[in-house]
Amino acid sequence: MGYKVAVVGATGMVGREMLKVLEQRDFPVDEIRLLASERSKGRRLSFRGQEIEVEVLSPEGFDGLDFALFSAGGSISKEYAPIAAKKGVVVIDNSSAWRMDPDVPLVVPEVNPEDAFKHKGIIANPNCSTIQMVVVLKPLADKYGIRRVVVSTYQSVSGWGKAAVDQLWEELRFILENCDKCPAEELKAKLRSAEGLSRVLAHPIAFNALPHIDVFHDEGYTKEEWKMINETKKIMHLPDIEVSPTCVRVPVLKTHSEAVNVELKEKFSSLDEVMQVLSSAKGVTVLDDPDNDVYPLALDMAGEDDVFVGRIRRDFTVESGLNLWIVADNLRKGAALNAVQIAELLISS
Amino acid sequence: MGYKVAVVGATGMVGREMLKVLEQRDFPVDEIRLLASERSKGRRLSFRGQEIEVEVLSPEGFDGLDFALFSAGGSISKEYAPIAAKKGVVVIDNSSAWRMDPDVPLVVPEVNPEDAFKHKGIIANPNCSTIQMVVVLKPLADKYGIRRVVVSTYQSVSGWGKAAVDQLWEELRFILENCDKCPAEELKAKLRSAEGLSRVLAHPIAFNALPHIDVFHDEGYTKEEWKMINETKKIMHLPDIEVSPTCVRVPVLKTHSEAVNVELKEKFSSLDEVMQVLSSAKGVTVLDDPDNDVYPLALDMAGEDDVFVGRIRRDFTVESGLNLWIVADNLRKGAALNAVQIAELLISS
Repeated sequence: MGYKVAVVGATGMVGREMLKVLEQRDFPVDEIRLLASERSKGRRLSFRGQEIEVEVLSPEGFDGLDFALFSAGGSISKEYAPIAAKKGVVVIDNSSAWRMDPDVPLVVPEVNPEDAFKHKGIIANPNCSTIQMVVVLKPLADKYGIRRVVVSTYQSVSGWGKAAVDQLWEELRFILENCDKCPAEELKAKLRSAEGLSRVLAHPIAFNALPHIDVFHDEGYTKEEWKMINETKKIMHLPDIEVSPTCVRVPVLKTHSEAVNVELKEKFSSLDEVMQVLSSAKGVTVLDDPDNDVYPLALDMAGEDDVFVGRIRRDFTVESGLNLWIVADNLRKGAALNAVQIAELLISS
Repeated sequence: MGYKVAVVGATGMVGREMLKVLEQRDFPVDEIRLLASERSKGRRLSFRGQEIEVEVLSPEGFDGLDFALFSAGGSISKEYAPIAAKKGVVVIDNSSAWRMDPDVPLVVPEVNPEDAFKHKGIIANPNCSTIQMVVVLKPLADKYGIRRVVVSTYQSVSGWGKAAVDQLWEELRFILENCDKCPAEELKAKLRSAEGLSRVLAHPIAFNALPHIDVFHDEGYTKEEWKMINETKKIMHLPDIEVSPTCVRVPVLKTHSEAVNVELKEKFSSLDEVMQVLSSAKGVTVLDDPDNDVYPLALDMAGEDDVFVGRIRRDFTVESGLNLWIVADNLRKGAALNAVQIAELLISS
């Protein structure tokens, strides 16, 4: 006995990763339906060796389904998630449309699995940079309490979709063809004056670090930064946890890294104890052997499922503080995998 | 009446930038001497339109000089700086060899110019990531006091010298030739198994973020991180200022960026006031207009002299806190320019 599952936004980067994850984890799928916009109509994607044709998203497309995994942008989710839910389909939505709705649970299975069962048809999948952080913060909060987190991110271009990935590749090719090994001062002029390069980010991303993810919002913070502040509180059920984020895009294809400074409420006895707490946490892998140059790296963690943590150090500037380096595949744990894990949670009960 | 100046390590990235800065700023040079290791003997570098031959470093090479700007690594500085100083030459040393010596001033002209005049022959030039941070922290410390700083860096490969710059270019070329537009999972396998690529950093840097700069040291912190902690205290004459750093290399050619969280001792009245304090500080340029996508960028600031700050935001998680994004050219203000500015300070009095 399997389930009837739709992937909405199936041709996007996260949609494709959802299909891959469903297949890799052998999710009990009886029927898969690929829904997307008119533009993708007739395209075929492979699932378990079969070519499945993409159908145009419509209310009727949700008839008879058990689950619909959405990753087609906020406005599609706003419109179609309630339609699907009304038809009895459980929607797991990767957009930001429903995340802060008090009637919609925002779930990371390692952190607040119980919330998934309180859904009224829609469950929200959190923002990628938030997911990987809370998976590591959760065991620390349980053991010591957390007062405050200062986080700086090193986010990959795939977090902004295929067009941003294409932008990075195009810019790199342009530079290697027109300005190989040229000084940094020339690079800037070349990239700034280049014509015909597609640009979906606010500025060039090759050879750059861009402190601007999603749109600017209140108080000079970006929407991405507000997500990290607000979603962390909701997922962890800790309205008082203080998060001070700076979100930055770097020329990395996939996998986000984060420098996370944590001020704990209670003292830890030793770093070994902290390592033990983290090592035994669900979904966390500790990679921390600096003497052998071992720490998690964006390049290596692409395609992995766990959240990786290393560079675990005592922060001597507060009574009980830690510095952590947290790395996870933003398309998997940060998006597709977390969504599928939510569905797994629901069918396992 | 000009000065007789040597550049030690003249053929390195910082040495060449020192020559360029001396020329650009019209430093009153009567005679320039280029000193380097045996390996560079006979090479010629251009200074004010003349080709100057590189001489092999020897004690006699310092005879009759006024200034010697060193950037040839710690062990050369350890050996030759005292020899030069004994001959009456003022040494301005860019290595880390003398920075924490209590008899050696560690100087950023915008922060502690008075210290330069207390030298006993050797003045140390601070670490690049520290210089750009303290230039911005200084006016804030003067006005409000600073309790604690949490900083995450986004440092360019040029900070590790030409070999690291070559590593980035080589890896990018290799990927574009062998794995153009390939998925992140393949990238990793390709770069990890590539033969013949030179590697001076601990891991590949293309498409990566490497939380490892300089060697690992006490308490799991790198030497680069300890420099930011200790040099900040010494330069600012604030032994109690708390700095909690994570130093990370990113695939950027030149110019370091830093996400800096500052906890102030006193409250500021408004962000406008903070902007005013920063705008009127020496050596600081505020670039902060998020509505028009304006904030400092590594790509754009290569070749600039000032330290740039943007993304200036109130940090709501402490009583009086700020988040800042600080960008400067690591070879100029972070090294060569700061050294020449120290010499300018001495001759201006």
